[in-house]
Amino acid sequence: MIRVPLARLVAFVEEDAPFGDATSDAVLDDGTCTAILRFREAGVAAGLKEAGALFVHYGVSATPRAADGDRVEAGAAVLELEGPVRSMLLVERTALNLVGRMSGIATATARYADLARKGDPRTRVAATRKTAPGLGLLDKKAVLLGGGDPHRFTLSDGLLIKDNHLALVSIEEAVRRARAFSAYRVVEVEVETAGEAVRAARAGAEIVLLDNMTVDGAREAIGALAAAGLRDRVRIEVSGGVTEATIGAYAAAGADLISVGALTHSVRSLDLTLEVSRPRQAD
Amino acid sequence: MIRVPLARLVAFVEEDAPFGDATSDAVLDDGTCTAILRFREAGVAAGLKEAGALFVHYGVSATPRAADGDRVEAGAAVLELEGPVRSMLLVERTALNLVGRMSGIATATARYADLARKGDPRTRVAATRKTAPGLGLLDKKAVLLGGGDPHRFTLSDGLLIKDNHLALVSIEEAVRRARAFSAYRVVEVEVETAGEAVRAARAGAEIVLLDNMTVDGAREAIGALAAAGLRDRVRIEVSGGVTEATIGAYAAAGADLISVGALTHSVRSLDLTLEVSRPRQAD
Amino acid sequence: MIRVPLARLVAFVEEDAPFGDATSDAVLDDGTCTAILRFREAGVAAGLKEAGALFVHYGVSATPRAADGDRVEAGAAVLELEGPVRSMLLVERTALNLVGRMSGIATATARYADLARKGDPRTRVAATRKTAPGLGLLDKKAVLLGGGDPHRFTLSDGLLIKDNHLALVSIEEAVRRARAFSAYRVVEVEVETAGEAVRAARAGAEIVLLDNMTVDGAREAIGALAAAGLRDRVRIEVSGGVTEATIGAYAAAGADLISVGALTHSVRSLDLTLEVSRPRQAD
Amino acid sequence: MIRVPLARLVAFVEEDAPFGDATSDAVLDDGTCTAILRFREAGVAAGLKEAGALFVHYGVSATPRAADGDRVEAGAAVLELEGPVRSMLLVERTALNLVGRMSGIATATARYADLARKGDPRTRVAATRKTAPGLGLLDKKAVLLGGGDPHRFTLSDGLLIKDNHLALVSIEEAVRRARAFSAYRVVEVEVETAGEAVRAARAGAEIVLLDNMTVDGAREAIGALAAAGLRDRVRIEVSGGVTEATIGAYAAAGADLISVGALTHSVRSLDLTLEVSRPRQAD
Amino acid sequence: MIRVPLARLVAFVEEDAPFGDATSDAVLDDGTCTAILRFREAGVAAGLKEAGALFVHYGVSATPRAADGDRVEAGAAVLELEGPVRSMLLVERTALNLVGRMSGIATATARYADLARKGDPRTRVAATRKTAPGLGLLDKKAVLLGGGDPHRFTLSDGLLIKDNHLALVSIEEAVRRARAFSAYRVVEVEVETAGEAVRAARAGAEIVLLDNMTVDGAREAIGALAAAGLRDRVRIEVSGGVTEATIGAYAAAGADLISVGALTHSVRSLDLTLEVSRPRQAD
Amino acid sequence: MIRVPLARLVAFVEEDAPFGDATSDAVLDDGTCTAILRFREAGVAAGLKEAGALFVHYGVSATPRAADGDRVEAGAAVLELEGPVRSMLLVERTALNLVGRMSGIATATARYADLARKGDPRTRVAATRKTAPGLGLLDKKAVLLGGGDPHRFTLSDGLLIKDNHLALVSIEEAVRRARAFSAYRVVEVEVETAGEAVRAARAGAEIVLLDNMTVDGAREAIGALAAAGLRDRVRIEVSGGVTEATIGAYAAAGADLISVGALTHSVRSLDLTLEVSRPRQAD
Repeated sequence: MIRVPLARLVAFVEEDAPFGDATSDAVLDDGTCTAILRFREAGVAAGLKEAGALFVHYGVSATPRAADGDRVEAGAAVLELEGPVRSMLLVERTALNLVGRMSGIATATARYADLARKGDPRTRVAATRKTAPGLGLLDKKAVLLGGGDPHRFTLSDGLLIKDNHLALVSIEEAVRRARAFSAYRVVEVEVETAGEAVRAARAGAEIVLLDNMTVDGAREAIGALAAAGLRDRVRIEVSGGVTEATIGAYAAAGADLISVGALTHSVRSLDLTLEVSRPRQAD
Repeated sequence: MIRVPLARLVAFVEEDAPFGDATSDAVLDDGTCTAILRFREAGVAAGLKEAGALFVHYGVSATPRAADGDRVEAGAAVLELEGPVRSMLLVERTALNLVGRMSGIATATARYADLARKGDPRTRVAATRKTAPGLGLLDKKAVLLGGGDPHRFTLSDGLLIKDNHLALVSIEEAVRRARAFSAYRVVEVEVETAGEAVRAARAGAEIVLLDNMTVDGAREAIGALAAAGLRDRVRIEVSGGVTEATIGAYAAAGADLISVGALTHSVRSLDLTLEVSRPRQAD
Repeated sequence: MIRVPLARLVAFVEEDAPFGDATSDAVLDDGTCTAILRFREAGVAAGLKEAGALFVHYGVSATPRAADGDRVEAGAAVLELEGPVRSMLLVERTALNLVGRMSGIATATARYADLARKGDPRTRVAATRKTAPGLGLLDKKAVLLGGGDPHRFTLSDGLLIKDNHLALVSIEEAVRRARAFSAYRVVEVEVETAGEAVRAARAGAEIVLLDNMTVDGAREAIGALAAAGLRDRVRIEVSGGVTEATIGAYAAAGADLISVGALTHSVRSLDLTLEVSRPRQAD
Repeated sequence: MIRVPLARLVAFVEEDAPFGDATSDAVLDDGTCTAILRFREAGVAAGLKEAGALFVHYGVSATPRAADGDRVEAGAAVLELEGPVRSMLLVERTALNLVGRMSGIATATARYADLARKGDPRTRVAATRKTAPGLGLLDKKAVLLGGGDPHRFTLSDGLLIKDNHLALVSIEEAVRRARAFSAYRVVEVEVETAGEAVRAARAGAEIVLLDNMTVDGAREAIGALAAAGLRDRVRIEVSGGVTEATIGAYAAAGADLISVGALTHSVRSLDLTLEVSRPRQAD
Repeated sequence: MIRVPLARLVAFVEEDAPFGDATSDAVLDDGTCTAILRFREAGVAAGLKEAGALFVHYGVSATPRAADGDRVEAGAAVLELEGPVRSMLLVERTALNLVGRMSGIATATARYADLARKGDPRTRVAATRKTAPGLGLLDKKAVLLGGGDPHRFTLSDGLLIKDNHLALVSIEEAVRRARAFSAYRVVEVEVETAGEAVRAARAGAEIVLLDNMTVDGAREAIGALAAAGLRDRVRIEVSGGVTEATIGAYAAAGADLISVGALTHSVRSLDLTLEVSRPRQAD
Repeated sequence: MIRVPLARLVAFVEEDAPFGDATSDAVLDDGTCTAILRFREAGVAAGLKEAGALFVHYGVSATPRAADGDRVEAGAAVLELEGPVRSMLLVERTALNLVGRMSGIATATARYADLARKGDPRTRVAATRKTAPGLGLLDKKAVLLGGGDPHRFTLSDGLLIKDNHLALVSIEEAVRRARAFSAYRVVEVEVETAGEAVRAARAGAEIVLLDNMTVDGAREAIGALAAAGLRDRVRIEVSGGVTEATIGAYAAAGADLISVGALTHSVRSLDLTLEVSRPRQAD
């Protein structure tokens, strides 16, 4: 599973406390405490590994009670912590922000995936690059944990020919150039009509992205590919404005993949709490 | 207004294209184009300065058609761009992610602020530290642009005594220590009952945070402060589970400040598009 | 207490030895040694935690014999070390530079604080932002350890309205804007006359900074505040050219806070030595 | 002359304003101003290039009225500035800290150098590695500008065999190993007696460092080298507790180089001011 | 084409001159000069864009006389430079190291590609991840400029199932898992026998890598794929010990792709020189 | 010995796996394995310490079976590893790239050094600054491990007056300025004729670099120095186009030092393999 460098996580805390946690410095004596990270609502856990690593970095021991990717009940404890109270409070907010956001993404992914499977058990939900700025790594990991396909990680690792490219080059020429650039990258073409879908598949694209089509439009495009004997040569991705209400219908229409920007661009953090208990003063 | 270092913005692009934009490298010839960043829905603009600076860094000229903080209509153009098509496409997604998230936060802030003012025109909406991990800088700036109070930026710049501190030290002792730590920081105490509110104000707290109280509970606490002759000595913050439905009532109950975690922990990105037009091949 | 990230401390050593410690590489065999960090003159210890962490990072065990903030006698051992001789010598100079500077600042702070208390036991000494470039974090921590108030850590965490602001905006308008910007920051106004002091306090400033006033001038300004019934509404800071000779008089004149730039802009390092003893060759 | 990377200077400002300059954000409208950086006391200028580059980075034009290394009179303007008032105030303190510290070092270096020359016009003053932590680059540059010899920049670039090495290896063996390590580094040996000085020179050291000797002791050691016919084979450095009162005598005793830790470990910042004038609101 | 961030290039120079270019600081006055970067032997140019950007960053104007990817004759000028002599000498070595290495890689790539085409005009040469540590970005760009396929950029962007994976999972299961992980990545399987090649193709691999096979072995494996009717379903990569002497035969045997580690792990820098001419002293 | 910061090594891996090792994530279950790093050809080991530290950082235990600097036989195991299979495969390529390159350099250095010693047992081989961009630290360390002299590490740590300097300043003036700049750096002058060699030595250079001379030319220059009674006052470096075929003759001609750019600019990586064995699934 994607490994988030510890230095990046530590930077989150340092940015949140450039001159330390002034309140704890002012108010608290040294001492230790235990704490429990608890889900206030049901969801798919994500970010526990990162939160645990952060606490450990600051001297707090962390024992996981759930694994990333698990479906967790409301009220469940997911991480048990013990250590210096000042470290606990220093890391608290960053850890909650991490787990809350990542679990929110994983939970939404799982929900969309369930709905897609009702349309067709083979259809998969995919992420997009519409993440929070700079958080692609965390957001893609959360989608994976929720059971989604992460899609391209970056602009460097897949060849996705979009309308802005096709304004300059024909579909056929674009696919030819993409193939010539490298044999080691999937070539995907974004199309807006059934006719373009057929051209893209015929030109050798491995994935055809049906962009902003209605369910009927998608069904028609997939039918045209089948009629041309090209359906098995390509994977079909549907993208653009897909909601929980419509994803099942797109799946039933024959999409292999349905990418959903809202998974990562409009996240609702899962509701969590860190219950700090039994603080003790140092002897 | 908060200045986001260019290096941090550039890092967003570099992380999204560690080995460049492979599709454009493969498919496009050199050439230039113009483009328009357009709001698809009405909202408060935020992030335009950052997006513009990013495009300029990569050689694309950027002319703003709206300023950060402006209320923008659906369909309005906010940024006009002209430059190399490869740079345009390289920066596109990062710029949209920036402006979409920040404008989403600013728009929600303005909406909450409007609702609070209906309860009491003097009441202000405030942010919390429940941001996306590492994005406190962008998120706090967006709240400011939406007309909110940014609250503490970090753990270093305000003294907020919470339940976890009070499990170890009495309210009175905590306020005394906070005052002794530094004369240059506001001392705020989080309380759960009217009685604690009175104790905090009497001890010298400058802000009393009524945590997770009902509207009635908040009204009662504020009344208790008034009865004790302490109402004018403190500012009252309400926090915890405030929604668009309830914020007006909290304001009417006498809160000076209402902090809303959802502003930044559960963002809905504003819907935007980058319309690339008239690409031209190089001569 | 402020936590200095280890990575920043390690960077000090790496910058001092970009290609390692050439002399030890050339001259020494492997081997271990013990060493003692000793104060050559009396002072307040600061930086021991950072120095210890650095040695430990490079494989040297470190046992503190004094705590940061302690008043230490001349000749006292403050840190006992044991480990590889090459690591010891690699870190030696950086550790001495850290402890020497920080203890120098802490010692000066304590000396000024003692003198201020003779004028009035309630008066506190405060730092300024006149630190060595980039060393605000270390310098502010040293002031805290010496018993001083760290004042603002950065430009982001307090609202200090100075002459350059007041050249553009009236005192009253500036304070009103500062209050409107955020409820979570102390508002301080720098003034040059008793009249301005009264205006600032009346406008709602929480701290009035008497800038570059004589002792008599400060006494007069404080008297004017008292006469206007505003003395209890504000904290009074005196700043500008205060010396060891004059600080007591300013305190006696009624200042709550006396900020002293020289604490951090003109540091005399405390005299220290690292006594390396009993080096042994590896078997 | 040593080139300080702009990114390092910018980091100083960013660290001083992680969320911007809150006061200016709150209180000021846009507008421009002019300003003059002025020396309040006579001294050798240093850091003007760095301060100018910083202002320019933030959009303020900077015209030098003195060059780094110049002897400047009290009251002289050294830098004229014009630009946005918010940028001016953002950079002000960092620029003053830079120029104040560096000019303080350069001025002290020039003063020691003048005193040494009175003892012997050929004797040079040298820096040590006793700098503020992490500021070796700035501090060494300031010593150069003050007319001093920067000595080793780091542990990597010179072979200085000290008492801690000699506790493990004989002088002769240490020099032999140092020579064998690399032909491209000067070999210097720290000695405590005249006898050791002779042994070091005979072994092939190029510089002999007389450590913590009295003036008489230094004269004796230099005499012993002359008697052994080795005086011309080595350069003599004196180090340890040299003051303004004694440096002339050490020079007269025959030292080629006198290194003074106080130049950089106990800096008195030069007294400067930034006079901001004629601020104008934006139209 | 891959864009190397300027900050990374600048870091090369800063690391080569942490305290500046001491020789030029010591010996030269200010002044300007012109210079020509010249190839001493024929080759394919690479790194000129990076070298030019570096010179420009340090204030030297750079005019390219050849483009990256061009075949350049021995003796040809490729970059004309004009600017401060100190900047010229500061950047000289880093620029030569960049262009020398990258052009060496591009030249070797072109040479292998020519030889492969003699075996079969459709066969392409590919890079591996056997680069200098940390230089994958530069090395892959150089391979592209020499006409090669860059292969995977990193471990994140392609699914290459190798012997170490197959020691734990069967070919069929590994391909199934890879497909299930993501639809957006090419699945490649490394095989050692003709039988494994057939199994990998049948399981759905898009590329079959024939590892360390003789030419005869490769021909046999390709024949087996054809006999099984799978030849058109996969691309064939040959890897392992291919030399200039053998690459043509592998191509003739039917490989689509031949990856050559030596392109980047055993680079011979192209022979270049920077001819500095007509230096002039400043007036 | 030069200490390579762990953070730099870790950055190599992170750059090679920005979103993790997708293949292992997709294909493997958790589990552990052992592995052996083995030399496929004889050579001088280098980089083992760095590779071991990297594996340990990622949770793999590493037991060295050879030390850096050792001459290792073909087939010998140099590092034994045990740990999580995913970590093993994540680090594998970076570790091989490190050890392969560094051992390649060390081995070539030792080979040149042996050949030089046949010409004259006192002659030493030296590196240059012709390294891979940014890899000076690793490359210089490898030269040291191979028995070579690292020469200058950077432009900051030695004064090497070259033709481009001498186009502006006479030899005599350049040496005088270099001496005046600092007493702590060796002064070396690059010359092209016997006459210049004599002038440089007479002016006080400590090293005379005979640039691009034939063996006869070098012998003549050294003879001229001897005739002028200056031979013992300087060290003689030969540089420029020296090969394995000619290095012995240059040594016999009297060179003290022979610097060879090819050691680091045209590296052949040593042939290594990581044999992963006995992987086991987690229970």
